[in-house]
Amino acid sequence: MLIKYGLCYNSGVDIKKLIKPNIRALRAYQAEEIPCRIKLDANESPYSAISSQSGSTRTEQSAVSFKNNLQTLNRYPDPQATTIRKLIAKELKVKPQNILHGNGSDELIYNLISVFGGPVLYPGPTFSMYGIISQALGEKKVEVPLDNKFDLDVKKMLAAIKKYKPKLVFLSSPNNPTGNCFSEDRILKIIRQSKGLVIVDEAYQPFSDKKSFVPLIRKYKNLVILRTLSKIGLAGLRVGFMITGPDIINEVNKVRLPFNVNVLSQKVASEALQNRRQMKSDIRAIISGRKRLYKELSEMDGVIPYPSDANFIFFKVEDGNRIYGGLLDKGVLIRNMNSVGDGFLRVTIGTPQENEIFIKTLKQVL
Amino acid sequence: MLIKYGLCYNSGVDIKKLIKPNIRALRAYQAEEIPCRIKLDANESPYSAISSQSGSTRTEQSAVSFKNNLQTLNRYPDPQATTIRKLIAKELKVKPQNILHGNGSDELIYNLISVFGGPVLYPGPTFSMYGIISQALGEKKVEVPLDNKFDLDVKKMLAAIKKYKPKLVFLSSPNNPTGNCFSEDRILKIIRQSKGLVIVDEAYQPFSDKKSFVPLIRKYKNLVILRTLSKIGLAGLRVGFMITGPDIINEVNKVRLPFNVNVLSQKVASEALQNRRQMKSDIRAIISGRKRLYKELSEMDGVIPYPSDANFIFFKVEDGNRIYGGLLDKGVLIRNMNSVGDGFLRVTIGTPQENEIFIKTLKQVL
Repeated sequence: MLIKYGLCYNSGVDIKKLIKPNIRALRAYQAEEIPCRIKLDANESPYSAISSQSGSTRTEQSAVSFKNNLQTLNRYPDPQATTIRKLIAKELKVKPQNILHGNGSDELIYNLISVFGGPVLYPGPTFSMYGIISQALGEKKVEVPLDNKFDLDVKKMLAAIKKYKPKLVFLSSPNNPTGNCFSEDRILKIIRQSKGLVIVDEAYQPFSDKKSFVPLIRKYKNLVILRTLSKIGLAGLRVGFMITGPDIINEVNKVRLPFNVNVLSQKVASEALQNRRQMKSDIRAIISGRKRLYKELSEMDGVIPYPSDANFIFFKVEDGNRIYGGLLDKGVLIRNMNSVGDGFLRVTIGTPQENEIFIKTLKQVL
Repeated sequence: MLIKYGLCYNSGVDIKKLIKPNIRALRAYQAEEIPCRIKLDANESPYSAISSQSGSTRTEQSAVSFKNNLQTLNRYPDPQATTIRKLIAKELKVKPQNILHGNGSDELIYNLISVFGGPVLYPGPTFSMYGIISQALGEKKVEVPLDNKFDLDVKKMLAAIKKYKPKLVFLSSPNNPTGNCFSEDRILKIIRQSKGLVIVDEAYQPFSDKKSFVPLIRKYKNLVILRTLSKIGLAGLRVGFMITGPDIINEVNKVRLPFNVNVLSQKVASEALQNRRQMKSDIRAIISGRKRLYKELSEMDGVIPYPSDANFIFFKVEDGNRIYGGLLDKGVLIRNMNSVGDGFLRVTIGTPQENEIFIKTLKQVL
């Protein structure tokens, strides 16, 4: 179904022409830590998707089922990551050929920029890796400021698209670090008017009640979705996914290192993806933690929290550096976002206990 | 000791100047399977460095010690891979700051080419990834044929270095697929006369009785060594290492994805590196298997095996495609090297039983 494009709102896009000549000619190869007591800086889940709240039973089962994998560690991993691609395809209601696996979604960002090149366009502030990887690969990058509600400034975005003709537009929605989803209609306008690929990075989508853009890959040939297991309890595994049409998958596959996701990560990811109930219950727990934390932050003098669809809350205080340092002195690590502007901070939703300690400590240092 | 360069035979090399401008300006981010019965195609060890000949005890210990790691899989891996870098540094008698970890050494090849760019020079035939990754990154590549003994044609290599001024020269020694080490003096000439980096890929060095080039990183600022766990029983983990001076390490670190080696691979690699005895005994078993296999192949009519310092043997038959297919029909998978020339094949050393079946089957199909 996904291989054919019945309706295509962007028929002007020629994927092959978007690819750098050297990539086009390529044949695919067939095969810092800060000490703290409470860590709320990296948008990790407070729960491991493998052990988690279910107690030690699943952990022990997983540990035992690992034996076979340890005994065959002399063998290279499945280069196609067949099992996990099938599982994620089923969950997202697409086909396995719509899925490409990465050693974390940041590797997929790297691969995309390798294949398509720049200019690379993205709003700001956003996930820093779009810019870092663009620069690492020597590609031009263009950042367009978000509007005053941290939504896409669609006029400026479209003007930049017209001016710079970006090969790639990265939209993190929910956006990191601001936490909000961009307006659906604004994202759609950008997808429709872009002659390059638009990558909607849905790393935090599981924490949002807004619609995923995954189903729209049927409609928009230039749409690419990124997903990751890193925010939902498996950051240690390094497993990310790209969801798009097979034309793009095939090209990106050319630059993907053949054995990019190791045997153990494939094994544990497949177990976790087969037992989504626990993962989903953990996500619900994080969402209710976020609601409670948002309310508490809203009620504090000198703190402005921003609405969040993600597993973190972006907020503003008068002296961000002092608050960040004060929290850290008391063992609570959050993220100092002074690169965005004075006073901006980001806190990851932890367990209810961790959230409580964070709030208590924040009140002490304010 | 390694940070200072007392003697430097290549003082004309300015590492900073070798780096592409966009990399120089970058600040580092903190933070097809063929069915078969016997698989002798991918230069894997027949023994898992974790389970291996020692029976199930170590596997079970490893499985149990995994529990803690599964319980913390919600956390990102150590971006510095501190433990495994320390362990490999100790083994190779260098400092941890001389070591950079990759998601397999192919990722390090990718990173090196990203940082330094092309032209990329290498002899041929050799490991195909040097060329594939160069092309994936849009960099010029130059292949210089080996001499008729599969050794470096040092005259042609030096002429190519003079003509193309390669930023990077890749020398796989022992060389894949030919199996031999290049002459030490020829490698040294290339290191000394090259204004770019020379990367000696020692993926297969543990199977050789020739000297490693690792100690020479003290002497030659432009020398980089690659090592991997993939050939010594841990291909499934995806762990490779680059050994060189901290100047190069720091630059390559800029393009390395921060969490490139996952938690589980770091954990298992550290266990394996702390228990080298088993690994070393497995390597000895593979070397004696190779000696026996070489002798048997030498005694067969219509088979020309080439001397090997690696865990595989390169050999020539009259009709390589027929022999490859005939073996596969009987469930024995080796590597068809017809890309090198008609009749060239490569067989990985297996267990004694696997080697015996390979020989028996080869006799049947010849």
